[in-house]
Amino acid sequence: MNNIITISREFGSGGKELGKRLAEELGYAYYDSEIITMIAKDTKMAKEYIEKITQTGEYPYEFQFAKSFESYPTMQSSQTEILLAQAKVLKEVAKRGNAVIVGRVANAILSEYNPMNIFVYADMKSKVKRCREKATDVEKLTDKQIEKNIREIDKRRKACFEIISGKGWGDKNNYTLCINTSNIEVKTLIPGLKLYVEGWFNK
Amino acid sequence: MNNIITISREFGSGGKELGKRLAEELGYAYYDSEIITMIAKDTKMAKEYIEKITQTGEYPYEFQFAKSFESYPTMQSSQTEILLAQAKVLKEVAKRGNAVIVGRVANAILSEYNPMNIFVYADMKSKVKRCREKATDVEKLTDKQIEKNIREIDKRRKACFEIISGKGWGDKNNYTLCINTSNIEVKTLIPGLKLYVEGWFNK
Repeated sequence: MNNIITISREFGSGGKELGKRLAEELGYAYYDSEIITMIAKDTKMAKEYIEKITQTGEYPYEFQFAKSFESYPTMQSSQTEILLAQAKVLKEVAKRGNAVIVGRVANAILSEYNPMNIFVYADMKSKVKRCREKATDVEKLTDKQIEKNIREIDKRRKACFEIISGKGWGDKNNYTLCINTSNIEVKTLIPGLKLYVEGWFNK
Repeated sequence: MNNIITISREFGSGGKELGKRLAEELGYAYYDSEIITMIAKDTKMAKEYIEKITQTGEYPYEFQFAKSFESYPTMQSSQTEILLAQAKVLKEVAKRGNAVIVGRVANAILSEYNPMNIFVYADMKSKVKRCREKATDVEKLTDKQIEKNIREIDKRRKACFEIISGKGWGDKNNYTLCINTSNIEVKTLIPGLKLYVEGWFNK
């Protein structure tokens, strides 16, 4: 079975950067927005619509009671179609080879692959700082406004994750390793993390 | 400033083994029950009594409102004396050289040293299994009884930690790294963890 690493992360924690650098260092494939493109191809729906659905948690209420995506094949909504395609695409990706997958509730969807599930988080000050460094469109925002954006994005991530997985987002018991990136440059953690991951998969 | 690593852990998670192996690998001093011996020497109280106080969370209610140990120098109870000695001893240890300290609320007491704080945890099945492998006195216990013991010990650890630090025990935001040791031998994680720790301190 291939080595699958899933990355869940708080907005501004540097989780995406961590996933990308880790994949490079390990020589694994890296997937993030690629998954959206693959779902769009599979469903023939617009990427923008898929992004909206998968990132806002606007799923039908019934999903809370679904044990797996496959248990709702008869639901005809476009959200169901997207979710089924999401599961299908993620499983295809997991079969292709070793991979790092950021977001997309991959840890829950791919649980049968026994993935290594990483959660990346940081204190609010560090997250605001990271947003300022990475994005150009936040220049005119105050720290309070950036903080508000972070909370709103994370609220949606939490809702998406919990409605699909039935588990707590950011609850350490649902992850193999939780990494606090407060006051640290992500790249300094990568060599150790690579070796840690290799040790974990060779268990 | 010396590199200080504190280890908090769920009972049966292998946190003590992890701390010991990590200290060996890094060439750092290792402290666990040594701290109790040092407090006994400092206070001239019996080790058994100190163990009882520091492990059962039987602290006066007023500690919940203490901002630091030093803010209660006038409290004359033996528990206060032990806590003051605990803070003194831990700070002496931190000044001596690089160290790994297991338990003793060291992450809160030594916060001014900017320690790397690790929390070690695992699912209940793995913790029960580890207890069976490590201890000889659990042979006659059922899994349910071992589970009950684990929950009780952790309840006391949580109480001790929270009354002294005012923070949540096991809440990932209070730690630098949270390590899940379910279904894994601790020793396989050490080479990666060593490198990770070195990266973190060289930040």
